[in-house]
Amino acid sequence: MKLIRFGAFGKEKPGVQLEDGTRLDVSAFGMDYNEEFFGSQGIEKLRKWLNDNESDCPKVGSEIRLGPPLARPSKLVCVGLNYAMHAKEAGMTIPKEPVLFFKSTTAICGPYDEVIIPKNSQKTDWEVELAIVIGKKASYIEETEAMEHIAGYVLHNDISERAFQIEKEGQWCKGKGCDTFAPLGPFIATSDEIKNPNNLDLWLDVNGERLQHSSTSDFIFNVQEVVSYISQFMTLLPGDVISTGTPFGVGLGFNPPRYLSPGDTMELGIEGLGSSKQTCVAYKK
Amino acid sequence: MKLIRFGAFGKEKPGVQLEDGTRLDVSAFGMDYNEEFFGSQGIEKLRKWLNDNESDCPKVGSEIRLGPPLARPSKLVCVGLNYAMHAKEAGMTIPKEPVLFFKSTTAICGPYDEVIIPKNSQKTDWEVELAIVIGKKASYIEETEAMEHIAGYVLHNDISERAFQIEKEGQWCKGKGCDTFAPLGPFIATSDEIKNPNNLDLWLDVNGERLQHSSTSDFIFNVQEVVSYISQFMTLLPGDVISTGTPFGVGLGFNPPRYLSPGDTMELGIEGLGSSKQTCVAYKK
Repeated sequence: MKLIRFGAFGKEKPGVQLEDGTRLDVSAFGMDYNEEFFGSQGIEKLRKWLNDNESDCPKVGSEIRLGPPLARPSKLVCVGLNYAMHAKEAGMTIPKEPVLFFKSTTAICGPYDEVIIPKNSQKTDWEVELAIVIGKKASYIEETEAMEHIAGYVLHNDISERAFQIEKEGQWCKGKGCDTFAPLGPFIATSDEIKNPNNLDLWLDVNGERLQHSSTSDFIFNVQEVVSYISQFMTLLPGDVISTGTPFGVGLGFNPPRYLSPGDTMELGIEGLGSSKQTCVAYKK
Repeated sequence: MKLIRFGAFGKEKPGVQLEDGTRLDVSAFGMDYNEEFFGSQGIEKLRKWLNDNESDCPKVGSEIRLGPPLARPSKLVCVGLNYAMHAKEAGMTIPKEPVLFFKSTTAICGPYDEVIIPKNSQKTDWEVELAIVIGKKASYIEETEAMEHIAGYVLHNDISERAFQIEKEGQWCKGKGCDTFAPLGPFIATSDEIKNPNNLDLWLDVNGERLQHSSTSDFIFNVQEVVSYISQFMTLLPGDVISTGTPFGVGLGFNPPRYLSPGDTMELGIEGLGSSKQTCVAYKK
């Protein structure tokens, strides 16, 4: 099943996308895609409800904005440097265990929303990533238990301001959480749709030029390792999002580096998770 | 006004604490202390409602557990190394601009809850801190506007596992977000109660021995600077919590370092914000 949310920013309603691309409004099911939904067998209940009610669900026109396909999670945790060639291009050593950081959840936006280049930004960069949606509270879980704690997967552009991230004092979070820096979607594919999350093609084009193209088979730490690892340090809640890192080909890695300007477009995709497209705009008060 | 929340973990109800220490259940007001409350003039509305309804509010017995005095915020952002002598004891240089990191909001607990020493932890440490509660959405605000974006202040113990924080790959968040690592409270003092947040005594005792004792007048970056600074990198929402850093006297700074063991107690306080007390326990599955 493919979960979508649609409508105006902050007022999104839940929907599903069918195999033929038709989008249906499932507001009548009565739950948004939030912690309560994921934590109470919401996916299975929605599936059953749809069996009985699909023909009564209003269609959602293709002109309607898609929002992020889940309500604001308690956290958006990211893995850094999880592809060897990307660690190299970033001038960093290959980590011995996963590098973790947070993105502010206020950065989350829809898959086709405009990306705002922040005030005073010179180094806004792209990062196509596979993100995991947690389906079951996870604390100190083993790798062998990880898959049963995953509700689904979603495409994420982990947009990053490199000067804010790296050239300022301290931790990376300054360059990761600006508004619109986390386009999610177009949809969450429930975990039954993704046979092996550790072997998916992913790619990103800037202005039509392919700059990232890799496979999650190149992960240093795979999906099971990442979920188990994070759960050793914090409790993951249903609906939490984990982004698994980006492959080679970000702007920082070019010589000279290439960064985003207003008018630039990013188009990105992952096998089985669709594609998204964002146009950059300048910050305006 | 002093805002409290009371009752079982995860099922807390809102209350207020009067000047004489009496605690009242204000559930009948109809709002928990969350983003909607802080973002919709909730404090002023509650104040007026209390004028009319105080005598009808049930008392809360002193045996009832106090929870964190606000519902789960969208984020818990912390400032690192914000007191010069603490930066020195941590072996770090005085930062030229605020160092920021996130704590997982799943770490938040009540002011008298037990603190769980995480599995595999050897270096669990204390940090008394003044925390700010945001009252109004803040993005790119000036220092002169900061105070009007603050709803109140709350005592925070920014508990930290130093090996997870510093000795593992990458960012600090691994050692900051374990369950129970963020006792908040006993209450939020609304901003009218705290005349100058940049001149408050704060202290922390371990097993009755005073190990931290300083004043927020020793801040490197004061409350206005911190709120304005963070808002340049991410949007702060009503109900978000910002913790402003800890003074000299953490376990890491001793020679040899001193860390917490099961049975140890921490008692801490800030002028105008009351005190809290936590006993450490071992992790049990």
